[in-house]
Amino acid sequence: MIVLGIDPGIAIMGYGILEYDKKNFKIIDYGAITTSSDMQTYDRLKYIYKGVDMLIKTAKPDCAAVEELFYFKNKKTIITVSEARGAAITACANNGLEVFEYTPLQVKQAVVGYGNADKKQVQFMVRALLNLKQMPKPDDIADALAVSICHCHSLNARERGVL
Amino acid sequence: MIVLGIDPGIAIMGYGILEYDKKNFKIIDYGAITTSSDMQTYDRLKYIYKGVDMLIKTAKPDCAAVEELFYFKNKKTIITVSEARGAAITACANNGLEVFEYTPLQVKQAVVGYGNADKKQVQFMVRALLNLKQMPKPDDIADALAVSICHCHSLNARERGVL
Repeated sequence: MIVLGIDPGIAIMGYGILEYDKKNFKIIDYGAITTSSDMQTYDRLKYIYKGVDMLIKTAKPDCAAVEELFYFKNKKTIITVSEARGAAITACANNGLEVFEYTPLQVKQAVVGYGNADKKQVQFMVRALLNLKQMPKPDDIADALAVSICHCHSLNARERGVL
Repeated sequence: MIVLGIDPGIAIMGYGILEYDKKNFKIIDYGAITTSSDMQTYDRLKYIYKGVDMLIKTAKPDCAAVEELFYFKNKKTIITVSEARGAAITACANNGLEVFEYTPLQVKQAVVGYGNADKKQVQFMVRALLNLKQMPKPDDIADALAVSICHCHSLNARERGVL
């Protein structure tokens, strides 16, 4: 199964595409779709949509996993980040993908083992699980890989009847 | 010039398409794209995208005008409404339309003449300007027609050098 993980953002949208066989992960691709604040909002959204659309057409994932947002955490940027999230999810849906949503707590629990883990711990576990020599930069990529791992682990748990 | 006005929403997205010749308005179409809360978010966004896409391909507007959101006004729904707004704007941008954004204050000023006008006054002016016998329901349609009128008036003002 191939999972496209997305960490939503308007300036930087991290993505991480993983193949998972119920035990091992194989990295297909990771990176970030970036847009400049000099661009008009509608051009940024179009660019994000096209970027996600191209990723899907190239890597042919089976589904997508996207981190959920909380307004109290991102008051200043919540509207633009949500719009970017909407554009990315629409690109997934228009390509026939089912889109799964996970809270930051769920991602931390699935990747590190407990919901209060900090950013560094998540990055450490992402690196270890994926056998990465270095953590890709910016952090949004690690977050996207984490949500992708989270979905794979959740599926495993669901199949075992734990969830 | 044909303008597609949009009042963003996830459950009800109002739209109003007007033709404007610097003096008179002609109604091309108005209505609402509605999605049920029983649907998955990604299906709702896909449905909104397809709806806006179809409107554009049918009415062939020259540009779109969309109302801006403010988080302090819509705390509970701001994330889902912004995502829906993102999907709608992406549909416009993917069809090559320039998208103009107006605050509720700008819409009221352009339609009624002052920014503190209430909903009823906006509806009254929309009805009068468009020669409508009855105000279309739900209110989201009137709001979409108002933002479309706002864009037409703003263009006029810009051409006269007032803005």
